Amino acid sequence: MTINTPGAAKLQRLGPSAWPHPADFAAPPSRTERERWSEADRAARPERLARLRARMAQERVDGYFGLRWEHMRYLTGLPFDESEVTGSGDAGKFLVTLEELFVLADSRYTIAVSRHAPEARLFEIERQLTEHWADLVAAAGVRRVGVEAMSIPHITWEKLAAAAPGLELVPIEGWVEAQRQLKDPVELERVAAASAVADRALASLLPSIRPGVTERELAMDLEWRMRTGGAERLAFDVACLAGPEAALPHGSPGDRPVLAGAVLLFDFGAQVEGYRSDMTRTLFVGEPTERDLGVYETVAGAQDVVFATLDGAVATAQGGAPLPTGPSLDGLARSFIEADGRWPAYGHGLGHGIGLAVHELPGLGRRSPDEPLPRRTVFSVEPGIYLEGETGVRIEDLVVIDVARGRADRVTLFPRDVVIVGV
Amino acid sequence: MTINTPGAAKLQRLGPSAWPHPADFAAPPSRTERERWSEADRAARPERLARLRARMAQERVDGYFGLRWEHMRYLTGLPFDESEVTGSGDAGKFLVTLEELFVLADSRYTIAVSRHAPEARLFEIERQLTEHWADLVAAAGVRRVGVEAMSIPHITWEKLAAAAPGLELVPIEGWVEAQRQLKDPVELERVAAASAVADRALASLLPSIRPGVTERELAMDLEWRMRTGGAERLAFDVACLAGPEAALPHGSPGDRPVLAGAVLLFDFGAQVEGYRSDMTRTLFVGEPTERDLGVYETVAGAQDVVFATLDGAVATAQGGAPLPTGPSLDGLARSFIEADGRWPAYGHGLGHGIGLAVHELPGLGRRSPDEPLPRRTVFSVEPGIYLEGETGVRIEDLVVIDVARGRADRVTLFPRDVVIVGV
Repeated sequence: MTINTPGAAKLQRLGPSAWPHPADFAAPPSRTERERWSEADRAARPERLARLRARMAQERVDGYFGLRWEHMRYLTGLPFDESEVTGSGDAGKFLVTLEELFVLADSRYTIAVSRHAPEARLFEIERQLTEHWADLVAAAGVRRVGVEAMSIPHITWEKLAAAAPGLELVPIEGWVEAQRQLKDPVELERVAAASAVADRALASLLPSIRPGVTERELAMDLEWRMRTGGAERLAFDVACLAGPEAALPHGSPGDRPVLAGAVLLFDFGAQVEGYRSDMTRTLFVGEPTERDLGVYETVAGAQDVVFATLDGAVATAQGGAPLPTGPSLDGLARSFIEADGRWPAYGHGLGHGIGLAVHELPGLGRRSPDEPLPRRTVFSVEPGIYLEGETGVRIEDLVVIDVARGRADRVTLFPRDVVIVGV
Repeated sequence: MTINTPGAAKLQRLGPSAWPHPADFAAPPSRTERERWSEADRAARPERLARLRARMAQERVDGYFGLRWEHMRYLTGLPFDESEVTGSGDAGKFLVTLEELFVLADSRYTIAVSRHAPEARLFEIERQLTEHWADLVAAAGVRRVGVEAMSIPHITWEKLAAAAPGLELVPIEGWVEAQRQLKDPVELERVAAASAVADRALASLLPSIRPGVTERELAMDLEWRMRTGGAERLAFDVACLAGPEAALPHGSPGDRPVLAGAVLLFDFGAQVEGYRSDMTRTLFVGEPTERDLGVYETVAGAQDVVFATLDGAVATAQGGAPLPTGPSLDGLARSFIEADGRWPAYGHGLGHGIGLAVHELPGLGRRSPDEPLPRRTVFSVEPGIYLEGETGVRIEDLVVIDVARGRADRVTLFPRDVVIVGV
């Protein structure tokens, strides 16, 4: 029972004197902490590779060719993300065999590979992957290779097939993604650290929110506070949406000024040592209208139902029962809003796993896989109500589940109360 | 003869009193200018589609299925870039037939499509592309569809093939890329505007460069100056590399302090109305060493050779001669450094086209296509010398070629002289 569930009825009104303070949230990680995480990753990689190899054996492939940056980082240690992978060509792509791990690198990346992936066998490339493919598979001694088919371009697949005709390529999907949803404790710590950076940044931004300031100005200001406050980069572009714009679940900040008497929605996240956070807070600029307050309480109530369910589920899961499925939790929150009956429920999913990527397994949408949540994982819970042309409210918290420790914890610690700004 | 080529011997020393001033560079574009560009894009799209359809007819396909965000933007008008495309699923993907243009959108994007791509026929999707594919090709009446095979994941290709077995899929590469290297004048104007944003940001940063400040701090500061000075986003992450780190052509800023008596390299760019810039300047923190100065003059000399060649080539091209090829220009700069003989030439290419993407055609590398440069285009000229563990110098300018107007212009206007900072 570790998620603090205040219940919609108990939401506080937090004006300036009661605002959260940046110092309420954890400071950015120390160098010691970051080194400990890095060391723990290194220690975890053999087990990660062992799990993949077990799957490979089961599916009768003797090689796994990986191209996704999340997988490069997770399995090899190379600290790649979207920004690095764009210019790195084929560097970082990898081939796991039953005994070895090959990591590709051109001359720009050989130092990075030996520094970050010391357990791997460096496979130097000078030209395009396709020109080296026959040599690689010969060096690896593989005959049937699974390839990440969501990530490899069709043309590359065709060229690899032509470059080593004796080799069988097997399109595979989701093996490492499935592994990654079960998180190591040090992965969860980094998601929490990234959440604290975001919490703290929003707390420090509150005094700057004044009628007249624009969405874009606030989004940049919040970004800046994260990036100078411990984020190595953003998890994704900050959304800041005022009044009716908050009804667009995928809107972007514009030159629209913040409106007195309307909502102000922030959806944002930080990245710390490769791991990301994601949170949404809908604030009130001045006195909330009765409707906006009602919408807010309903969304918070939908979240509460999910939190309370998770609390109970973790307790029974300790006795061996499965956790609820993603779609069942989505259904709970959705039914709560529909049962209230005043406003339509959100069109998107209730939530998503998060880690190296912002969106990963488990899925908590209506069409997500109908299987129990992993027993040690982290995901968002983000119900919303959107009234087109009028207003929108979403509240998004990250929740960590750890059945072995009997824990279900919110790691987004910025209050979910009614926060009044701009007055 | 419009590239001002001072010649290596004529490089000035620019201390604080002679520094460029932010006001030396063009102000960010006005709203009127931005609207004019948008209008010109709209007017240009039918011609862009006509060129693509001519290629389709020539290659005997009656459909072109596009997935790259650059192509979505170029052909349909949807203002997508990397950040937008990540979360947009299949929205924005498009099918060009000989008479029509279909743009896919789910409910989140129907408004954006009708606003930005009013000439297109909106094709609404609710689920994954593969589930809508048979309906789409039936609505379009196509039988043989070219698909961007560098962009479509192999698994998606397989699913599309299975979803409409009567349809022939043809893997294609580079058709729109080839078109895009010939730039419209309004595209060139935006690259120049993005260059001015970057020029101005660096000029305004100069007083902040002091020994002790770190690479990361300067990179963030420069980013901030661009983003608050007219850039809608960065063209790519800022590189700021001090002293020996400048020898890494793909290094990232670290917590390393700027070193007195060493070089300081900035590689950065802005995005303005979808178009990007890219420039590199290597500054000197305090008095340059004789070696660093020699390296700098050699790199500048290599650039000069290329500039002078381009000046002459545009003049003869007006008479109908082809422009030089990318590899031949790379060879000129490389030979200049090799002939000097004191230091090794750069390992990367001399340059690359730029526009909606940072790296596009034409290529100016050793292995780039050996074909004449387009007659109206823009590309970087960025020779470098890298002495591992010691120092590195790269100077990168964007050059616009417009044969019809008899012009070869540098659009990077920050001086290439020896700029002394931190004193």
